[in-house]
Amino acid sequence: MALSEFKLIQTYFNRSNETAEPDILLGIGDDCAILRPKPGQDLLLSIDTLIEGVHFPQGTAAYQLGWRSLAVNLSDLAAMGAQPAWFTLALALPDSDEGWLSEFSRGLFDLADQHQIRLIGGDTTRGPLSITIQVHGYTPTGKALRRDGALAGDALYVTGFPGEAGAGLRRIQQGGYTDTDHLIRRFYQPRPRLAFGQLIRDLAHSAIDISDGLLADIGHIFERSGVGACVDVDAIPCSAPLVEAEGAVEALRLALTAGDDYELCFTAAAEHHAQIMHHAQACQLPVTRIGTITFEPGLSLINASGNSVVMEGRGYQHF
Amino acid sequence: MALSEFKLIQTYFNRSNETAEPDILLGIGDDCAILRPKPGQDLLLSIDTLIEGVHFPQGTAAYQLGWRSLAVNLSDLAAMGAQPAWFTLALALPDSDEGWLSEFSRGLFDLADQHQIRLIGGDTTRGPLSITIQVHGYTPTGKALRRDGALAGDALYVTGFPGEAGAGLRRIQQGGYTDTDHLIRRFYQPRPRLAFGQLIRDLAHSAIDISDGLLADIGHIFERSGVGACVDVDAIPCSAPLVEAEGAVEALRLALTAGDDYELCFTAAAEHHAQIMHHAQACQLPVTRIGTITFEPGLSLINASGNSVVMEGRGYQHF
Repeated sequence: MALSEFKLIQTYFNRSNETAEPDILLGIGDDCAILRPKPGQDLLLSIDTLIEGVHFPQGTAAYQLGWRSLAVNLSDLAAMGAQPAWFTLALALPDSDEGWLSEFSRGLFDLADQHQIRLIGGDTTRGPLSITIQVHGYTPTGKALRRDGALAGDALYVTGFPGEAGAGLRRIQQGGYTDTDHLIRRFYQPRPRLAFGQLIRDLAHSAIDISDGLLADIGHIFERSGVGACVDVDAIPCSAPLVEAEGAVEALRLALTAGDDYELCFTAAAEHHAQIMHHAQACQLPVTRIGTITFEPGLSLINASGNSVVMEGRGYQHF
Repeated sequence: MALSEFKLIQTYFNRSNETAEPDILLGIGDDCAILRPKPGQDLLLSIDTLIEGVHFPQGTAAYQLGWRSLAVNLSDLAAMGAQPAWFTLALALPDSDEGWLSEFSRGLFDLADQHQIRLIGGDTTRGPLSITIQVHGYTPTGKALRRDGALAGDALYVTGFPGEAGAGLRRIQQGGYTDTDHLIRRFYQPRPRLAFGQLIRDLAHSAIDISDGLLADIGHIFERSGVGACVDVDAIPCSAPLVEAEGAVEALRLALTAGDDYELCFTAAAEHHAQIMHHAQACQLPVTRIGTITFEPGLSLINASGNSVVMEGRGYQHF
């Protein structure tokens, strides 16, 4: 690279002069970072790679890419109810474009600062554009919110408005959009639900973040928990911008099946409903009950009248 | 991919049925892995990416790639004197060739098992071939061996035979080699010096692994430590296979400047020499004193007679 790896890291990624955290003994600059994990806490970690042309369109603005790369990883911490602590970044770049690096690191640190997570190490190299981030966070010992804890009878919830990111991606692929459009921003700048995840950690029995699509991720919960789920399609929250952009039928299909929303889907005993809604309000986050966990394995869809419905092709049909 | 990500991970990477470690509460299969770091220990971590055509030649055998990807990361733990604990793997693959995956995972786990490090999570995706691994290890609190602790008067050491991997890479690039050649194996299958790193942890003042080349990495030590170094070029251990392949002059140049060896370079008070050699013998690892840390900043090269020499072009010349 024109810019040496050392210079690049120093200029765009090393902020070691900022206020030190007591659990970070050594960040960027040696063979390893040195951490002293907090006592009484479990350490949670997750790694994800974003590759140009696979996970984001070619030409994605660097700021948005910096944000999104960290956001999708933070969402994994949110889904487990963890408090963010540190992250590492492995960045492969075709060249060292300083304008790009400046914007990428600005997007990355804007989100990192919001959630007080520190960059402690990484690797930069030449190669096809790809970003791998590993995030680390804490929960009190034994308190992590897993996807395998759902119980029959649990209420099933979703945060926010699923399907918006999918509709945003469709617009990006079609072209002719502006980056400030609501749906576009929902794809490029997902907001990991960290505060809410920590608030429901002691109430919820299971949780997952919606990266594969709402129904697919509900499937991951009930399969791992050895139960089933009944989803009321009339309860699925379809936002006004989504319905306006796609029409009611397609909006619902996207809400049920499109990925990339990074909202949380979780289950909890019905008796905690009021408390969950209280936490939702505290986070100014829409939270909707969309179904129930069942003894019977598998997924069933019903409408508000309680009749079975079936997804088919681009919509759903009543039996 | 033809093979689903889930199936691929289950088949080639999930060995969660093996004996559980008490600090691994949950490995592969949820949004995050859950760890309970050992009390009284610092946690060390390092992330590195290997990209086809940049860090390894196209057509590298999958077994060797699996080994090498983990080895270069384990070497970072070795350089800090850490004991390996867990690793994560983010793998981008152009397609899901089952023969390739089988061999890659075999190479990866052959080395992982030697050093008892567990795969606890990861990400697989389609994309240009690249492997990102993050390793995690322990040292007793405050005992990590850093590169910034060298003191004037320290003896300077190197393990093994630097330059062999560089000569191996040259042969690979020229073609017409066999994978079992000693120099080729030294490039593809570096042996991270983990046991020795842990043994010298309480004796050495500083250490680094040789990935950039011996002189460059000595430079990283003395720059970070605010000292200088004097290296006796006649003391540099050039192995018989290296000298046979490259001749004495070129062998020395490779030993001083070629990267990829993943040997350790370290400094320690001269009074510990006998104990260091004792540990070297216990590890059956050649260890050579090659110089001294100096008050004067910068690097100086001398020969066995104590006269200054200077590196120039493809060799070195006396003043």
